[in-house]
Amino acid sequence: MITGGASGIGLSCASAVAKAGGNVLVSASRKPEKTQQAIAHLKAINSAIDVKAFPCEVGQEASVSAFFAAIAQAGIQIDHVIHSAGISPNTEFFDQTQAEWDQVQNTNATGSFLVTKYAALAMKNNPVRGDFRGKILLVTSTNGINSWDPVSAHYDASKAANNLFVRVAAEKLSEDQICINGLAPGWINTDLNATLPPDVREKESAKIWMKRWAEPDEMAHCALHLLTMPYLMGQVVMADGGYR
Amino acid sequence: MITGGASGIGLSCASAVAKAGGNVLVSASRKPEKTQQAIAHLKAINSAIDVKAFPCEVGQEASVSAFFAAIAQAGIQIDHVIHSAGISPNTEFFDQTQAEWDQVQNTNATGSFLVTKYAALAMKNNPVRGDFRGKILLVTSTNGINSWDPVSAHYDASKAANNLFVRVAAEKLSEDQICINGLAPGWINTDLNATLPPDVREKESAKIWMKRWAEPDEMAHCALHLLTMPYLMGQVVMADGGYR
Amino acid sequence: MITGGASGIGLSCASAVAKAGGNVLVSASRKPEKTQQAIAHLKAINSAIDVKAFPCEVGQEASVSAFFAAIAQAGIQIDHVIHSAGISPNTEFFDQTQAEWDQVQNTNATGSFLVTKYAALAMKNNPVRGDFRGKILLVTSTNGINSWDPVSAHYDASKAANNLFVRVAAEKLSEDQICINGLAPGWINTDLNATLPPDVREKESAKIWMKRWAEPDEMAHCALHLLTMPYLMGQVVMADGGYR
Amino acid sequence: MITGGASGIGLSCASAVAKAGGNVLVSASRKPEKTQQAIAHLKAINSAIDVKAFPCEVGQEASVSAFFAAIAQAGIQIDHVIHSAGISPNTEFFDQTQAEWDQVQNTNATGSFLVTKYAALAMKNNPVRGDFRGKILLVTSTNGINSWDPVSAHYDASKAANNLFVRVAAEKLSEDQICINGLAPGWINTDLNATLPPDVREKESAKIWMKRWAEPDEMAHCALHLLTMPYLMGQVVMADGGYR
Repeated sequence: MITGGASGIGLSCASAVAKAGGNVLVSASRKPEKTQQAIAHLKAINSAIDVKAFPCEVGQEASVSAFFAAIAQAGIQIDHVIHSAGISPNTEFFDQTQAEWDQVQNTNATGSFLVTKYAALAMKNNPVRGDFRGKILLVTSTNGINSWDPVSAHYDASKAANNLFVRVAAEKLSEDQICINGLAPGWINTDLNATLPPDVREKESAKIWMKRWAEPDEMAHCALHLLTMPYLMGQVVMADGGYR
Repeated sequence: MITGGASGIGLSCASAVAKAGGNVLVSASRKPEKTQQAIAHLKAINSAIDVKAFPCEVGQEASVSAFFAAIAQAGIQIDHVIHSAGISPNTEFFDQTQAEWDQVQNTNATGSFLVTKYAALAMKNNPVRGDFRGKILLVTSTNGINSWDPVSAHYDASKAANNLFVRVAAEKLSEDQICINGLAPGWINTDLNATLPPDVREKESAKIWMKRWAEPDEMAHCALHLLTMPYLMGQVVMADGGYR
Repeated sequence: MITGGASGIGLSCASAVAKAGGNVLVSASRKPEKTQQAIAHLKAINSAIDVKAFPCEVGQEASVSAFFAAIAQAGIQIDHVIHSAGISPNTEFFDQTQAEWDQVQNTNATGSFLVTKYAALAMKNNPVRGDFRGKILLVTSTNGINSWDPVSAHYDASKAANNLFVRVAAEKLSEDQICINGLAPGWINTDLNATLPPDVREKESAKIWMKRWAEPDEMAHCALHLLTMPYLMGQVVMADGGYR
Repeated sequence: MITGGASGIGLSCASAVAKAGGNVLVSASRKPEKTQQAIAHLKAINSAIDVKAFPCEVGQEASVSAFFAAIAQAGIQIDHVIHSAGISPNTEFFDQTQAEWDQVQNTNATGSFLVTKYAALAMKNNPVRGDFRGKILLVTSTNGINSWDPVSAHYDASKAANNLFVRVAAEKLSEDQICINGLAPGWINTDLNATLPPDVREKESAKIWMKRWAEPDEMAHCALHLLTMPYLMGQVVMADGGYR
């Protein structure tokens, strides 16, 4: 199951799962055509798998709860969750408002909690395979570790909340043999980042030791590695191509 | 100026400032009698200083904005801000709701932003003394660095947001010669913590190398040290008596 | 190429590489029979691969230099290095001597530098495949991040040196398209750790959220994941089963 | 007692202690005239205090042991130790030799251990004042947290070792009511740093949010603050003027 799976890193993760032969369930985008495109894309990659989409507003408990209820209703067992949905507005520091801060904290911080909470409640009923009943991976951000720029102060703060949450949730979920880790991507060539001003892109590129941005596919590979690595629990792994 | 100055660490900070001869302005508590007690307490410490209280809901931009407007209206120049207001409910992990998460993120994460934003806007008009026009200290928590317990997952996440915010805000505010740092207290003998179950107190005490909890007065001393230390910017200093 | 490949995590890494069909070159143990056993073990896993061992004292520059010269002499191209060799004596804090400290820093801190330096000098001549001419993985320790116990103060300090070194070396080696990362294992069922007093084992086990120690094979899997993950550079990844 | 007290940050710390009326004991420089100048300088600041110097090679256990034995012999009780001695050669990464690495690790990592070990053994006999029998402050470096440049890879690694050591030593020394913390300075206007190439100075200055380097006196103030702050144990505080 992948939130934010209709575009960007989420869709790349879904594609990688499809390629590997796993059934895919994504949270539907607010734009129905985007969801339809994503489903078609995944089916084209592997026609033998199941691809489903259910609506989910990650910052609204009623919606997240209904999302997981619909999944259970459909008789689907969720083994892995990649939570990639989030928002990242850039606004001049002194122009950031309470409304914008509250929205970013709700979607990114509260949203990660809600998806984790209901995913874990669902996974509690899974049989144990290997060490775990299920595994969760939160896609966070290097901004939550190093901070980035005052224009994303709210986003950076919310991602720091996510990174810390991985650790506190890991301790709790381990009681039920559920594993949670985080992936903190650096600069990725997503549609979202394509809108950044060219001078920002250039300035940031100069800070990357690998001298290039990552493709979303590479983050998908990182995500699958982190879902597979044994004995990893409560960790957030930065994949930023080397950045200072 | 001290938020949360009517009790706990905030009141101890206010008392330390009063003892040192500084005028004190606190954000009023929601309980008027608590505010009156705090003012009387501070006047008793030093009758020569000005002690004022204005109402402020730190998570509501209109309230924070009005608070600083009232201060400006009263002709008061704010040199130092200690932001200590915050909430820390303890709730079993799976019983934490969106409403509770949103409230904690609003008060602690958004609230710290709002107080910092309007404090900085006010300080921009101050003359430069030494290196700065003003200094801000956020009282955060070691929970935001080490995490603590799943019952405070929302609080821990919000405090991680605070800790990261100190760094991103420091970069921005330095443009206006305003300095911001953070103090992350460990276990303190506040009224709030007095309500913890005895077994939790005992278990936590065993983890402290100094083998005792701190008094609020000690955190006040830490706060004044951090407001005085030169060349400190964008740092969060843990004062936890040694804790593992 | 794997240092410390004749036992413990190093041998497990060598075995995993052999299983995957890669040629293996290990630094020989000081005990020749141990090296012979390791070679036989690896040949038994996969008789189709080349398995070689050359002597190498990682803390002695002349030895490390001669080791890589012998490899070049033999016409072997090194694509991946896993540096696992190290020492971890446990001695009561006040009984640790200069001699013991110097030896631990030499083997662990200086040794990691020397292996990295000569591996990179060799890799500079490799063709670029994908993003890199070669990849290096240092096996460090969670002790270098969290610290562990005063009896291993010297080891913990040396592993902190290793963890930081990964970052500074990554910046330098990226100029030559060489990638370096670190793996910080928690408690692993190695022969070395089998000698720990039972009460220490029990106390430490209680701190692990996964409620078990890792097998060396699992660390080998982690190592191969980290050598494969794209866009990872200058990172140290902890694999500790969740530990507080 | 201050190591490295004959110049740089160490001498500034000694001067600050002298100004405050404390007796000062410094480890003598290898250059006798430098030591004599330092003693004269401190006496000129405050003629009422005792100023003494004994020889000490911090990386040689016999010397450190003799140093503390001489202090005990002279009937001097040591309440506070500031350990500032260290070396920081800059050498192109691939030109760094085993000899240079071993020397840096010996002086900086092993040296910090030896001074801490013998200081603590001496302090164990002190009466308890407040919470402690004595307090130790290690002067480390931001390089040990963020790393700096490949030319100081050995130094950066040794300072990471120091920073981690503060934590593991704090746990042990707390058993004897001895407190240890660290101060990690950023760029300071010392004689040592005056030899840096102008382009490096300029490039580094651009990264400092306060837009200036610190004076050694400011680090001395930081050191005294950290020796005074209550409930601080096992912490390393960065004072870098805001740096990215």
